[in-house]
Amino acid sequence: MTDSLLIHRRELDFQLFELLDAEGLTRRARYAEHSRETFTAAIDSAHAIATEHFVPHNRKSDEHEPRFEDGRVVIIPEVKAALDAQTGAGWIAATHDEALGGMQLPVLVAQACGSLFKGANVATSSYAMLTTANANVIRRFGSEAQQRRYLPGLLAGRFFGTMALTEPQAGSSLSDLKTSATPRGDGTYSIRGQKIFISGGDHELSENIVHLVLARIEGAPPGVKGISLFIVPKHRVDDAGRVGERNDVTLAGLIHKMGWRGTTSTVLSFGDRGDCVGELVGEPHQGLACMFHMMNEARIGVGLGAVMLGWRGYLASLDYARNRPQGRLPGSKDPTEPQLPLIRHADIRRMLLAQKAYVEGGYGLCLYAARLVDEQKTAEDEAARREAGLLLDLLTPVVKSWPSQWCLEANSLAIQIHGGYGYTRDYPVEQFYRDNRLNPIHEGTHGIQALDLLGRKVVMQQGAALAALAQRVQQTVAQALGVPELRAEAQALEAALGEVRQTLAVIGPLLREDGERALANASVFLEAFGHTVIAWNWLQQALAAQAALPRASGEDEAFYRGKLHACRWFYRWELPRTRAQHELLRSLDDLTLTMAPDWF
Amino acid sequence: MTDSLLIHRRELDFQLFELLDAEGLTRRARYAEHSRETFTAAIDSAHAIATEHFVPHNRKSDEHEPRFEDGRVVIIPEVKAALDAQTGAGWIAATHDEALGGMQLPVLVAQACGSLFKGANVATSSYAMLTTANANVIRRFGSEAQQRRYLPGLLAGRFFGTMALTEPQAGSSLSDLKTSATPRGDGTYSIRGQKIFISGGDHELSENIVHLVLARIEGAPPGVKGISLFIVPKHRVDDAGRVGERNDVTLAGLIHKMGWRGTTSTVLSFGDRGDCVGELVGEPHQGLACMFHMMNEARIGVGLGAVMLGWRGYLASLDYARNRPQGRLPGSKDPTEPQLPLIRHADIRRMLLAQKAYVEGGYGLCLYAARLVDEQKTAEDEAARREAGLLLDLLTPVVKSWPSQWCLEANSLAIQIHGGYGYTRDYPVEQFYRDNRLNPIHEGTHGIQALDLLGRKVVMQQGAALAALAQRVQQTVAQALGVPELRAEAQALEAALGEVRQTLAVIGPLLREDGERALANASVFLEAFGHTVIAWNWLQQALAAQAALPRASGEDEAFYRGKLHACRWFYRWELPRTRAQHELLRSLDDLTLTMAPDWF
Repeated sequence: MTDSLLIHRRELDFQLFELLDAEGLTRRARYAEHSRETFTAAIDSAHAIATEHFVPHNRKSDEHEPRFEDGRVVIIPEVKAALDAQTGAGWIAATHDEALGGMQLPVLVAQACGSLFKGANVATSSYAMLTTANANVIRRFGSEAQQRRYLPGLLAGRFFGTMALTEPQAGSSLSDLKTSATPRGDGTYSIRGQKIFISGGDHELSENIVHLVLARIEGAPPGVKGISLFIVPKHRVDDAGRVGERNDVTLAGLIHKMGWRGTTSTVLSFGDRGDCVGELVGEPHQGLACMFHMMNEARIGVGLGAVMLGWRGYLASLDYARNRPQGRLPGSKDPTEPQLPLIRHADIRRMLLAQKAYVEGGYGLCLYAARLVDEQKTAEDEAARREAGLLLDLLTPVVKSWPSQWCLEANSLAIQIHGGYGYTRDYPVEQFYRDNRLNPIHEGTHGIQALDLLGRKVVMQQGAALAALAQRVQQTVAQALGVPELRAEAQALEAALGEVRQTLAVIGPLLREDGERALANASVFLEAFGHTVIAWNWLQQALAAQAALPRASGEDEAFYRGKLHACRWFYRWELPRTRAQHELLRSLDDLTLTMAPDWF
Repeated sequence: MTDSLLIHRRELDFQLFELLDAEGLTRRARYAEHSRETFTAAIDSAHAIATEHFVPHNRKSDEHEPRFEDGRVVIIPEVKAALDAQTGAGWIAATHDEALGGMQLPVLVAQACGSLFKGANVATSSYAMLTTANANVIRRFGSEAQQRRYLPGLLAGRFFGTMALTEPQAGSSLSDLKTSATPRGDGTYSIRGQKIFISGGDHELSENIVHLVLARIEGAPPGVKGISLFIVPKHRVDDAGRVGERNDVTLAGLIHKMGWRGTTSTVLSFGDRGDCVGELVGEPHQGLACMFHMMNEARIGVGLGAVMLGWRGYLASLDYARNRPQGRLPGSKDPTEPQLPLIRHADIRRMLLAQKAYVEGGYGLCLYAARLVDEQKTAEDEAARREAGLLLDLLTPVVKSWPSQWCLEANSLAIQIHGGYGYTRDYPVEQFYRDNRLNPIHEGTHGIQALDLLGRKVVMQQGAALAALAQRVQQTVAQALGVPELRAEAQALEAALGEVRQTLAVIGPLLREDGERALANASVFLEAFGHTVIAWNWLQQALAAQAALPRASGEDEAFYRGKLHACRWFYRWELPRTRAQHELLRSLDDLTLTMAPDWF
């Protein structure tokens, strides 16, 4: 399995068992039935299904988008076959209770397994991913009756789920949602409105589709405080969970995208005939809170998806670089010497090192965040759960945006290594690049993540989350200062953390006085902070590698040396970018505010 | 014409007449028949044809790629109609002698006009662009008989041209070309071999296709010193230029790409039946020199193409940002206030400013390079011609690579401003991004440009080119130091130039001793040097704007203020990146050399 197309298998073991102590989770009551062996078996199973059923049609589903024909959405048959294999093996319910038919896996392990499906075929994997997210919301906020009606179908993959937030006039600005909900007198609501960009919004892959819809109950307050959450099934479901007649939800159009083409993206009309029944989930006007409850996990999913596309491109270009002969070294004067493989050229190794640093750094961060979800849910003492939740809230914008930015860049480098061939559709890398371009947009754009981080997360609870992070970073610094090979990196990380603090000392006080100015350059802060967080993660990876190196040999030794080298690369080539960013931030540069619209 | 989809018309006047003294060229004998009015008329004509014939099918030709059917290449009819309009108006011969039916325009003006076709439809414009390049080579190196046979057809657009360099096993490594040429005893050669990625390699858009093919004459020395250049027509041509029987050139396959889909990209077989006739151009074994003679102009064309795609995305996202209401300012607490247009948000203005700085900076540089071609060809004294040639050689790698990198980034920002809509094929920006991704690859990859710049151009003739550039940069610095509003930028530019010199003081001596190490991080040098060159260009633009501002009002004033603002943005947000790059370069970091292939 070391020759996987999806990831170095060694990387999974390193992350789960050498860094993130997945085994330690088995001491928690919820995971007591598990062991390293069951975790490994789960990964093997996911890898096998992903490789056998998801990889082969990745290009085909890109070339044959879902289309609307004779009143139904037609999707190539391989998609359903793959999803049947995945749901049949129980993957939608990976983290759910055994009593509900779930595997009761830690989120860490479930996300690691889920990452393999994403890497194999990000479009096909979306259907199951959205269904899991949907089931998580209903499990957490649904009434008992709702859970009885919908959960068995969702968890078994007979029903698929969606998240229906965006409307044509309201994307980033959720407070402007207009879809309405009118009480029908029987406890249900009549839903009316239009939603757009609804992934998996219509298809015949499952018996039913369960939409989670944000809408306003008549008379609700304006803005985000008046938004409620509704279950709106495509086919109505009776109390026993049986699928009945069609609900008034209609497909108003399919959306055609640059990439990620295998996932149906839809415009949906709710209540065109005045007969769209929705069930309120949780309390009225608490819809956004319910939705955001699962946002952390959904955003880990986005980050992880970006990383896995990064892995695919990295491994494809690594293989190409090892096997494609081209050119000779600068010193060579003899054109009759045989050509060298691309990997012998420094500039090719630069592009491979960059990809490795982006992909493995991003992977480490996403899995760390998944581990925090487990900690938040299952840590034994309240303080630990609380701290994990704080860290998770703080890191989520980075987890979502950093891989979306840098693993897209990794995909661009993978194309570049392939030269002209990489730009053709005969090689897979151009698709990874197109697929990955979605990630900085959906589930909150890059700019929205930046506002969330600087405007909310770093200052919430008097900066408690940032303090918790800083403490952990300092622990890593202290540890690395004691390791001669990593002392320079430890010092650089400490300095980078200091820069973050200095910047916040300037911007923090301004947040209340002049939010527009304080937040004007938030995306620069997001990027500088993100690089610092990744540098921290890389130093943790390097510490583990350095510790293991003396006893390692063969492939293991090469693996650890690669980790150390990539860590150094990140510190010498990437982290120094942040200094200029912090200088800009502390100058409170106002060019973006003072540029008049008619000067463009 | 200010509401052009392609470019701000005001920008063209600014670049040509306020910065680059296009009118001054009319004092040269070659351009004496021209005037500002004829230049403007040429631009108007190109703009009209580009808008009317090239823009409308840009999406359609992306969706309907050329296909092979019943032995012929089928292309949507709009492509031929557009090319007929373009060639009918004489655009292929824009810079050629009036005696040959050309317009005898300066390269500066011809490139500005050509840029409009590229922006309108980069794929369709390729056919004419390649034909012009082809004709330029035959005009410069072809025998009188060859010129008589081929030039009239090429310049009138009855024949189209290609450049056939790359082979399946030899892309960046031209020294490994294998296509062979065997004397047939009548002065012609029998050509045999396969070429790949040949744009415009087969189609029925013109009566004939004239391939310029690099091949080795039997017994030639190995490597680049044994490569010769041949004219190989698809249909043989008699001495009167009449098209006759088919030559033995066959289409071995069409290549399907991520973008730029409207241009046929082909695999061509020469001499499968042993009957492919080629005519030697110039001296034997001098093929690369002939080809490189037109490389400077071809690479300006690539840079300009990247810039124009940048313009398209910039203008599309500017329009979207002005018209799409979304969200409110950070301070707003009232969700019943109407939404603001996107352009009111600082982060959107950041993305617009970045695009403006990349696109207008890149445009300024490309046109400056085109002006150098005119200087090299028509300056009155030998020293001026020589210096222009030196500067052009030095700047060409930057002209080719900088826009390819940063105007691609501009296109990504254009998508981002559109949010989810930008990722759909209902908006044009995703295509610009796909089309632009080719530019860092073709006509010499990013890495090849970096080796050319650091390994050759900055050190050639004892650094004479760099000295000439430094002198001009210092002139700009001196001028700007006298303008209080631009003093900070002048100082920053001087410091950036100093960084370049310091870096070269470290790397320069190493180039002979240890070329592999000296060149290992060449791409970082290319990027740092590129940002410095663009900063210089921006300061020239700002000086012109600042000088004109006191007498400007209305739209003109807004234009100049925008220029000054974008210049400042580049100096505060972009140029500071180079400091960390120079530190890395001067450290002679060897991580890319010491990373073992099996550590990946």
